[in-house]
Amino acid sequence: MASEEPQNPSPMEPQEGSNKISKKEAAKLERQRRRQEAAAVAAISAVSVEESDPFSGNYGDVALNDLQSKAVSGRKWTEVGSITPELKGQVILIRGRVQTIRPVGKKIAFVVVRERGFTVQCVLTVKVDLVSSQMVKYATSLSKESIVDIEGVVSIPEKPITGSTQQQVEVQISKLYCVNRAVPTLPINIEDAARSEVEIEQALEKGEQLVRVNQDTRLNFRILDIRTPANQGIFRIQCQVENIFRQFLLSEGFVGIHTPKLIAGSSEGGSAVFRLVYKGGVPACLAQSPQLHKQMAICGDFSRVFEIGPVFRAEDSFTHRHLCEFTGLDVEMEIKEHYSEVMDIVDRLFVAMFDSLNENCKKELEAIGKQYPFEPLKYLRKTLRLTFAEGIQMLKEAGVEVDPLGDLNTESERKLGQLVAEKYGTEFYILHKYPQAVRPFYTMPCHDNPSYSNSFDVFIRGEEIISGAQRIHVPEFLEKRAGECGIDVKTISAYIDSFRYGAPPHGGFGVGLERVVMLFCALNNIRKTSLFPRDPQRIAP
Amino acid sequence: MASEEPQNPSPMEPQEGSNKISKKEAAKLERQRRRQEAAAVAAISAVSVEESDPFSGNYGDVALNDLQSKAVSGRKWTEVGSITPELKGQVILIRGRVQTIRPVGKKIAFVVVRERGFTVQCVLTVKVDLVSSQMVKYATSLSKESIVDIEGVVSIPEKPITGSTQQQVEVQISKLYCVNRAVPTLPINIEDAARSEVEIEQALEKGEQLVRVNQDTRLNFRILDIRTPANQGIFRIQCQVENIFRQFLLSEGFVGIHTPKLIAGSSEGGSAVFRLVYKGGVPACLAQSPQLHKQMAICGDFSRVFEIGPVFRAEDSFTHRHLCEFTGLDVEMEIKEHYSEVMDIVDRLFVAMFDSLNENCKKELEAIGKQYPFEPLKYLRKTLRLTFAEGIQMLKEAGVEVDPLGDLNTESERKLGQLVAEKYGTEFYILHKYPQAVRPFYTMPCHDNPSYSNSFDVFIRGEEIISGAQRIHVPEFLEKRAGECGIDVKTISAYIDSFRYGAPPHGGFGVGLERVVMLFCALNNIRKTSLFPRDPQRIAP
Repeated sequence: MASEEPQNPSPMEPQEGSNKISKKEAAKLERQRRRQEAAAVAAISAVSVEESDPFSGNYGDVALNDLQSKAVSGRKWTEVGSITPELKGQVILIRGRVQTIRPVGKKIAFVVVRERGFTVQCVLTVKVDLVSSQMVKYATSLSKESIVDIEGVVSIPEKPITGSTQQQVEVQISKLYCVNRAVPTLPINIEDAARSEVEIEQALEKGEQLVRVNQDTRLNFRILDIRTPANQGIFRIQCQVENIFRQFLLSEGFVGIHTPKLIAGSSEGGSAVFRLVYKGGVPACLAQSPQLHKQMAICGDFSRVFEIGPVFRAEDSFTHRHLCEFTGLDVEMEIKEHYSEVMDIVDRLFVAMFDSLNENCKKELEAIGKQYPFEPLKYLRKTLRLTFAEGIQMLKEAGVEVDPLGDLNTESERKLGQLVAEKYGTEFYILHKYPQAVRPFYTMPCHDNPSYSNSFDVFIRGEEIISGAQRIHVPEFLEKRAGECGIDVKTISAYIDSFRYGAPPHGGFGVGLERVVMLFCALNNIRKTSLFPRDPQRIAP
Repeated sequence: MASEEPQNPSPMEPQEGSNKISKKEAAKLERQRRRQEAAAVAAISAVSVEESDPFSGNYGDVALNDLQSKAVSGRKWTEVGSITPELKGQVILIRGRVQTIRPVGKKIAFVVVRERGFTVQCVLTVKVDLVSSQMVKYATSLSKESIVDIEGVVSIPEKPITGSTQQQVEVQISKLYCVNRAVPTLPINIEDAARSEVEIEQALEKGEQLVRVNQDTRLNFRILDIRTPANQGIFRIQCQVENIFRQFLLSEGFVGIHTPKLIAGSSEGGSAVFRLVYKGGVPACLAQSPQLHKQMAICGDFSRVFEIGPVFRAEDSFTHRHLCEFTGLDVEMEIKEHYSEVMDIVDRLFVAMFDSLNENCKKELEAIGKQYPFEPLKYLRKTLRLTFAEGIQMLKEAGVEVDPLGDLNTESERKLGQLVAEKYGTEFYILHKYPQAVRPFYTMPCHDNPSYSNSFDVFIRGEEIISGAQRIHVPEFLEKRAGECGIDVKTISAYIDSFRYGAPPHGGFGVGLERVVMLFCALNNIRKTSLFPRDPQRIAP
């Protein structure tokens, strides 16, 4: 049955001791909830003791039974984002969240309703023939973030409503029903979570202390945190990045594939591997990348493939740029002569991507920039390519000594990013011909110097987002290199064997989706671009 | 650095006892390989002892060094699939696999070259000023499936070449280089793997025994198996199914998301869960579906989301339609009034998908049908919807008694599919209002009868491919239902809590990508539509 729905869901709660923050927060939340429940009961009874109201049918909580797919009414719903002055005088029906409620005396209440990041101000005014004071009281009893249905007439306010996205309109409420109530006190308020550092500091200068929601609290209550305009923007941008990646590659003759994440094998795979036991007691692990299988797909005649899927790294990296699970965008392709063919794809793909984001995601980028101000990414029409040796030389001239056959550390990568930006005016560039010693065993060495390799990394704002190379397609050579790198060849024999039946020269690259979004928007932490991040200390919610 | 490339790859070889078939095959392969190596050495030395040839520069094995990105020559390559009579008289350069080699005496050899499923016949004829007999000998020494570069002139044959896809052209070879040699004896031959049952049986009637490659052998040597025209078609169709799914949903305002596959929790998640130990010794498991997190994304204001990603099921299901890892296409969306809104999306999405596949994937469908003949799927412009009760009644009238509050087994599903096809002329339909008892705890019961639920399954050719429902969005009710279904509510508290901050009514569905492709093409086994399938007995290659 149910291809989607296991009868017993995967449990999600961290176990004892798994997450200190979560445990502490949980206790706090439990206390909060008890208070809230008491308050909610009090509020509801306060409303229900009111005198009977001839207009009582125009407001109230919707009974659960009425939300169980009772009927299809044929009513038309208007999206908050599409309420414009053209609708003036029309009766509309909207569903959204109560973002704020502001009573003015006992006869007027302003309710700002939010849907998909758009907001509109709705006004409830006591009127003899339509709206009772009980209805206003009911409205003010609603908790923030509750879901409401509102029927009302679109009107044009005297002055634009600066507090909402639909500034040129208001809705004069005639009916107001609560579809689902939020708890009265939220663990974090959306306006607090949406506040920029600049706002907090400016307020502080005026002696005012505004709430700052820290990263861990945000992640513990991610459901609320992702409702902020910036987060709504971030994940819509992420969806676009992925879609542009896919559409570009499809238009270039690539085939999208899915390779297995469950891989046979035991502990030989290194320490950064999540291990598990497969059916029949077989030792297995989670794929650290689709590297081997995407190469096998090339050997299987797919010529050019890409994969978008989760990648698992059990690394103890507590940095701003590492996750234990992230989304990999992987590419592998036959090459005719040179790994520059792979860099050409990277070049055209990413320039097309940046262009498209800047052109089609203006609202999202603006929403992100409002909370996390950033400068648009500087990039060239034709992506700059420097050799590793040239990069080393630039660093040397700037007084930074780097091992010419070693790797760049995060600090020198960042420094080189600065130097490149100053000299070439770009924050997006390719560094190629890396030392062979710092690349994986399957990397093809340079034809004229085996100390260097046909490989490259790609940087945005001084941080690596892509890694790629020509691969070794000759099984005997691959076996030799694996051995030299201390890898037990027996454990990867299925991979090596796939090159014995005729293997074309090929290369490819891998991109971290979360890193692309983080660095395009100059965000300071990769947890901001993962919907439910997983790091060495976090596996919930 | 390297976001894609772990220094130590995940090992892929099954361990002792993990896969009996694989072990046996491995031993066989080892013996084969030794024979092949000896044969290859013999063949090469046979060529090298030849007399010196003034045209020796026009053929031979390309040295590895020349394949290490030595230079960018600027030469133009022509794809085999684009060689047409318009190119007559032109010199072209192609790279592809040697599909077959047929010498005719010592002066002529026919080489069929394959690239991306397209084939062209190339002819090598001894000519005084260009082609030596040594070159013909070299050509006939090439093993099948080797990668070659061929330069030659396009000519028009007297009769169409029925054995290749490019029937109106030939290539008169002037240069022939081997880029990478396949082992002389392949574990399976492509023409054997590409043969239909019909062909085998027709040959048998004539007293001829053709090789039949069984499923397990195919999967053990998947790299070779996926080179067949049918398999090339299957995985290109799969890529299209996924892309149509995505593009349709994006055009309807859905956002693509990625939810974590690593989920906290221990053994309470039921037996069909793959368990592992997360960082810090925290018990964890692999997500059996993105169900809980996709609902959480709806609570996080994304309104409409979809996810394409791996789904893990540690079930002991040895059927033609179950895998331990498959690609889930998941959808979740707010609903205004009725779960029919979800079924509307299913309806329009799949009709659009089938239309698009039939229109844009003719070549692929033809390639599949040639090996696995099938009738095009019958479906209506507006998808048929029957209630579960109506389905039961149809079965009853046909003499099949089914528990009205139980589930349908595979047999009755198939029978109902037949009855529906006969009565309504469609092999694609929706069955809704399933008994509550057979649906997951989070399924919303019917408003007028709690024994039934606001749920549905979707069938192609009598087999289930989609399962969906309205979900319970009220936390207290959800808690109650979880308890009634024997689920420890503590283990899913993060999930239940996400409905406490205002939750809109919502619903969704999940599709198995491999099942859609399998049933659209009427294939008999889901392993045919998984690139590297994982089942209880297989975790390699």
